[in-house]
Amino acid sequence: MTSSDTQYVSSRDNALLKDLRRLAQDSHAYRRQGRVWLEGDHLCRAALQRGLRPSHAVFQASYFDRAGHQWADAGGKAVVVDDTLFASISGLESPAAMGFVLPLPAAPALEPDAPSVLLDGLQDAGNVGTILRSAAAFGFGQVLAMKGTAALWSPKVLRAGMGAHFGLRLVEGLEPDAVDKLAVPLLATSSHQGEYLHRTALPWPCAWVFGHEGQGVSAALSERAGRFVRIVQPGGEESLNVAAAAAICLHASAAGDRGQAGRAGRAG
Amino acid sequence: MTSSDTQYVSSRDNALLKDLRRLAQDSHAYRRQGRVWLEGDHLCRAALQRGLRPSHAVFQASYFDRAGHQWADAGGKAVVVDDTLFASISGLESPAAMGFVLPLPAAPALEPDAPSVLLDGLQDAGNVGTILRSAAAFGFGQVLAMKGTAALWSPKVLRAGMGAHFGLRLVEGLEPDAVDKLAVPLLATSSHQGEYLHRTALPWPCAWVFGHEGQGVSAALSERAGRFVRIVQPGGEESLNVAAAAAICLHASAAGDRGQAGRAGRAG
Repeated sequence: MTSSDTQYVSSRDNALLKDLRRLAQDSHAYRRQGRVWLEGDHLCRAALQRGLRPSHAVFQASYFDRAGHQWADAGGKAVVVDDTLFASISGLESPAAMGFVLPLPAAPALEPDAPSVLLDGLQDAGNVGTILRSAAAFGFGQVLAMKGTAALWSPKVLRAGMGAHFGLRLVEGLEPDAVDKLAVPLLATSSHQGEYLHRTALPWPCAWVFGHEGQGVSAALSERAGRFVRIVQPGGEESLNVAAAAAICLHASAAGDRGQAGRAGRAG
Repeated sequence: MTSSDTQYVSSRDNALLKDLRRLAQDSHAYRRQGRVWLEGDHLCRAALQRGLRPSHAVFQASYFDRAGHQWADAGGKAVVVDDTLFASISGLESPAAMGFVLPLPAAPALEPDAPSVLLDGLQDAGNVGTILRSAAAFGFGQVLAMKGTAALWSPKVLRAGMGAHFGLRLVEGLEPDAVDKLAVPLLATSSHQGEYLHRTALPWPCAWVFGHEGQGVSAALSERAGRFVRIVQPGGEESLNVAAAAAICLHASAAGDRGQAGRAGRAG
């Protein structure tokens, strides 16, 4: 970045700063602004590695003096913000010293045959981000979020996703009808009905449905699910965190060598 | 609760309120005060179900008028706090309308033969609480936290634990030496070495070691671990959230019918 690409901001009322605050603190603002806020170097580097380029790279002034050169090839306009003002941008508990503004990636079409994860009304941003990470790790390349699920590109979900967003096909705001387009079998997790996961031959590809933290999978998606699967819990009636349950299910699909043949190898 | 058991607080400088704020907002304050803050009805009911009794039951005034009668049998002194003042207590993102002050349960001795989870420097309260839930669900009744791990009885870990604390043997602040007292085999998770979990016969009982979010398991515990286990990730190099990884490992132990004999049944 040459100095001509660099804008210095020292006024609290700067228009860009106002937009950034909304983007960083309001989990739905990205839909109105058509761009997302990536906070912290891990997330920004993950985006660059996937070939994404920011419209703006935003730095705390003291960080920019020290480490701005590391981001010289990032592209976009560099925006350097007074230290005290920068702190006003973040909505995270541990604010970072830099971030990117990235054009919101275009929503892809639903891919009927893709191994998929369906998020059916999950509320907690940390849970949603953690599930995106697990989906990416276990080869579920498509994540479909029903209307009412936490906004996928919000700063908190992005933070918890640790870069998983950039390698996934993400479709959000779906009505239950949309699920009918899927050609892969739907497996719904349940706390009280269905086959036990560890005794089940899992189809591949498939779509796993994970539900709301309190209420579980909705009636609309339960009706559409061909099968229910539950997780054995010898410790008693304790409930599992939904992102923990999702990790277990997605791993079971991946470790099953993607089909019954491979699963037979497990006993060895 | 009769009115004689009830204290009304309307001053910001009330001594109990000051103590409560520290207890609710400082994750280490419970060690100094010898008592813990349970926020929200779910957590408080979970404690009551385990036979624990609060020293104080604290209510937002408007909630107390509406629902205080539901807690008439809780025991302890009822403290009713002006609505606006009550909001100053919580350190949580979504403050609740009531909470308990509970005497800090006495630290139990380490049980050498118990199925155990070792927390080796984990920092994130949400991760730690989620792992406690998974430990309880999968029959790992003892959790040992090494020095440097997030404080187990902090309000945020309690919130994420959803009541799991009350059914577990929790020992914290341990030095690596303490682990030598364990008589069960130690399994350490690793991102890059060891046997693949889904192809491994797991011993029962055992102790799983989960490490720091960024740095993984420490050298001190790696040396002591008999075996390393890794999780297959066909999606590529994406990293898993540590609480997701823990859920997968603890479930594998539980689903393995606690030993090789049971695991052979998996292929069926």
